[in-house]
Amino acid sequence: MKRSTVIELLQSDKFLQEVYIKGWVRTFRSNRFIALNDGSTIKNIQCVIDFENLDENLLKRINTGAAVSIKGTLVESQGKGQSVEIQVNDLEILGDSNPEEYPIQPKKHSFEFLRENAHLRIRTNTFGAVMRVRSVLSFAVHKYFQENGFNYVNTPIITGSDAEGAGEMFHVTNFEANKAPLTEEGMVDYTKDFFGKETNLTVSGQLEAETYAMALGKVYTFGPTFRAENSNTTRHLAEFWMIEPEVAFNDLDANMDLSEDFIKSVLQHVLDNCKDDLEFLNNRLIQEDKAKPQAQRNEMTLLEKLQFVVENNFKRVSYTEAIEILRNSKPNKKKKFQFPINEWGADLQSEHERYLVEKHFKCPVILFDYPANIKAFYMRLNEDGKTVRAMDVLFPGIGEMVGGSQREERLDVLKEKMAELDIDEKELWWYLDTRKFGTAVHSGFGLGFERLVQFTTGMGNIRDVIPFPRTPQNAEF
Amino acid sequence: MKRSTVIELLQSDKFLQEVYIKGWVRTFRSNRFIALNDGSTIKNIQCVIDFENLDENLLKRINTGAAVSIKGTLVESQGKGQSVEIQVNDLEILGDSNPEEYPIQPKKHSFEFLRENAHLRIRTNTFGAVMRVRSVLSFAVHKYFQENGFNYVNTPIITGSDAEGAGEMFHVTNFEANKAPLTEEGMVDYTKDFFGKETNLTVSGQLEAETYAMALGKVYTFGPTFRAENSNTTRHLAEFWMIEPEVAFNDLDANMDLSEDFIKSVLQHVLDNCKDDLEFLNNRLIQEDKAKPQAQRNEMTLLEKLQFVVENNFKRVSYTEAIEILRNSKPNKKKKFQFPINEWGADLQSEHERYLVEKHFKCPVILFDYPANIKAFYMRLNEDGKTVRAMDVLFPGIGEMVGGSQREERLDVLKEKMAELDIDEKELWWYLDTRKFGTAVHSGFGLGFERLVQFTTGMGNIRDVIPFPRTPQNAEF
Repeated sequence: MKRSTVIELLQSDKFLQEVYIKGWVRTFRSNRFIALNDGSTIKNIQCVIDFENLDENLLKRINTGAAVSIKGTLVESQGKGQSVEIQVNDLEILGDSNPEEYPIQPKKHSFEFLRENAHLRIRTNTFGAVMRVRSVLSFAVHKYFQENGFNYVNTPIITGSDAEGAGEMFHVTNFEANKAPLTEEGMVDYTKDFFGKETNLTVSGQLEAETYAMALGKVYTFGPTFRAENSNTTRHLAEFWMIEPEVAFNDLDANMDLSEDFIKSVLQHVLDNCKDDLEFLNNRLIQEDKAKPQAQRNEMTLLEKLQFVVENNFKRVSYTEAIEILRNSKPNKKKKFQFPINEWGADLQSEHERYLVEKHFKCPVILFDYPANIKAFYMRLNEDGKTVRAMDVLFPGIGEMVGGSQREERLDVLKEKMAELDIDEKELWWYLDTRKFGTAVHSGFGLGFERLVQFTTGMGNIRDVIPFPRTPQNAEF
Repeated sequence: MKRSTVIELLQSDKFLQEVYIKGWVRTFRSNRFIALNDGSTIKNIQCVIDFENLDENLLKRINTGAAVSIKGTLVESQGKGQSVEIQVNDLEILGDSNPEEYPIQPKKHSFEFLRENAHLRIRTNTFGAVMRVRSVLSFAVHKYFQENGFNYVNTPIITGSDAEGAGEMFHVTNFEANKAPLTEEGMVDYTKDFFGKETNLTVSGQLEAETYAMALGKVYTFGPTFRAENSNTTRHLAEFWMIEPEVAFNDLDANMDLSEDFIKSVLQHVLDNCKDDLEFLNNRLIQEDKAKPQAQRNEMTLLEKLQFVVENNFKRVSYTEAIEILRNSKPNKKKKFQFPINEWGADLQSEHERYLVEKHFKCPVILFDYPANIKAFYMRLNEDGKTVRAMDVLFPGIGEMVGGSQREERLDVLKEKMAELDIDEKELWWYLDTRKFGTAVHSGFGLGFERLVQFTTGMGNIRDVIPFPRTPQNAEF
């Protein structure tokens, strides 16, 4: 007999059919009702046992976490909360789960405890839901780009360039620690390392993606990137997945349009395809809110927030306007900001972004045209000579979701900027070639995928939306 | 006016419409015909210039590689080889390309030369086709798994475990070379490194994926993996992308079925969606073949080969049968194999795999039930006590495309094997937990994505199917 999955049976209306299913026991109550899950859906199927006719030793082995194989009859359920159930005719234990030892019991575990058991936390409702949503969201990303004529580009993870400038890098080497060979002058002899030079883990695929956009027109990356920064926060990972589209002939306006359309489209896809998981996560947040003081509760539920983003325009505000709003804001006047906003040119901190998004505009905000000296070397200088065509998309509860820009396409201006910042032209000869041969206006952005998963699932800590998080002092599993 | 792409215009039948297009000059001949490409398709659109009315200085700047913006009228083409063309009314040079300096001229360049210009080779027909096919193939991978109920899992790139056993690993560290701090005993003090322990780049996500399969049922990874092996061949990269599905309750037969169905399905998707690019690559190979002596030519064209794989069953052969075939083969008897096959238990070399696939069976072959002592610790031991439920899928011209197995689900047998091989249980405590709590039969495989791209595009060197290849002594770009 062909094995069915839980989701197939829950959607079936062919009653009285013989069925065959495998999965894990989530709960077992009254010596009669097994809630069985196989990962195909957050929902369990109820399997009803005739315990009077079951071997007592077998009965004792039906514990939370045990793997079982069940044959039985699919019937309409008499009980509440489910439409179908299985009348069990045959039950086999595939793998036991000793209740004295199994860490994932049917009770509330702290997220911290579950992080220490990241290999087992996926067996809980919350993490099952989060990771299924993460998977569907990944697919939505590919679908959006592929259907809109973008080519997926796998930019290198190990990079010989340290000029990407987006943050501290991890070293990659074949040398044993403290045993690197030396040159005659007593320097580390990197020509003897695997790649014949110093190499690091990439912080961004943008520069390589630009070279591809200047031939294929529209490209995107979606791969792991790294930051060797000692940030122990709920918003930072040392290893995270980034999405970086890059489009030839797009200016900053088109770039803003793309980022907004992209985010709305992938959220809509998840709303359409993850109903059960999102409903569970929605209720989880409502319950969590109930335990909080009124002032800290969310104004919208998770589903309302997602719907709101999909249906409303992102507010587009220039940096200069934003500074005016912040300078005149209550928290600034009452000196509540840790970093007071006094003048144009200040770098915006998380507290300022949150004020703009959560208090002032109450919707996603795209800030653009930032001061040149707080942004990266490759951003297009505006005619005013002091701002660049940069943009950040800020989200309530998350902060910066997207950072992007129109790129400086003029070879002379780009070289000047690199000289100013002491970036070696030899290091980026290939990048400069894109401006030397057939240069054109082009734009792109980077979106931290885990922040998007956080927003979509309502999870407060970024460590809970990636299977095995890498953070300072933690590379377990 | 809205800008169009080349592919949109080539598919259009609305003649005499005003159109607006941007792209790069591929060739310019007779001071009249621009072949314009924007990456949206391998095909160029012909733009016809009235050179007598064009400024001479502008005319001189229409060089191969230059970026241009064109407005004009779409008309039925009079010339051969295209159905439509643009009568140019307005031409603007966006970015020049000095023909004295631009490396990518409209002539045949060697692949070696193009590898040194990996940032520009994407501007050639061959690499444009290869990378568009690679992109569509990636999407086919995600589509296949998502439509079949698999969840995408991002397993960690930086790993604290060195027990994966699939090959030599690169070290990841925050220490400066030769400046790692020491403990009181004079050992390298890894507690002071970023992750508080020794870390490496992953060689496989399998072990982590198994923990997810034992909760979500069906999962797959698709991400970069690494080998610090000094293999300077046309089949090896230090950084490559791997696809690793893992399925709870699947035995080895189901695993073979999955691998065959998966490969056929993604190839069919590419056949359906990359017609122009595949046709170009098909012709490229036919031309290449013409320059070869008869004996070295391909028996089938690229398109015939792809069609053949999609339509025919893979041949399934046990290791034991394969050894018999090889032992009795002509090259073995005539001592033509570098490694003669004398007895059961020998590890198969590339020459043996090629003989089986290319000479004997002439189709993809799945070898299964290998001797335990030439395979990894986690593979399911057969009842004979000497073979394991391993499988390799071998492809003509490529060799090993897939390696997989049913996993050892019995805690005691697994522990015994690890003890034999001196693998520390403490190192893999979390992996053992999957056998301790709710263990079950499960299987999976790894497929090297670049080898699949090689097979699909007919490219002979693996360095030509990934944008920026990483190999010994090479991490440029």
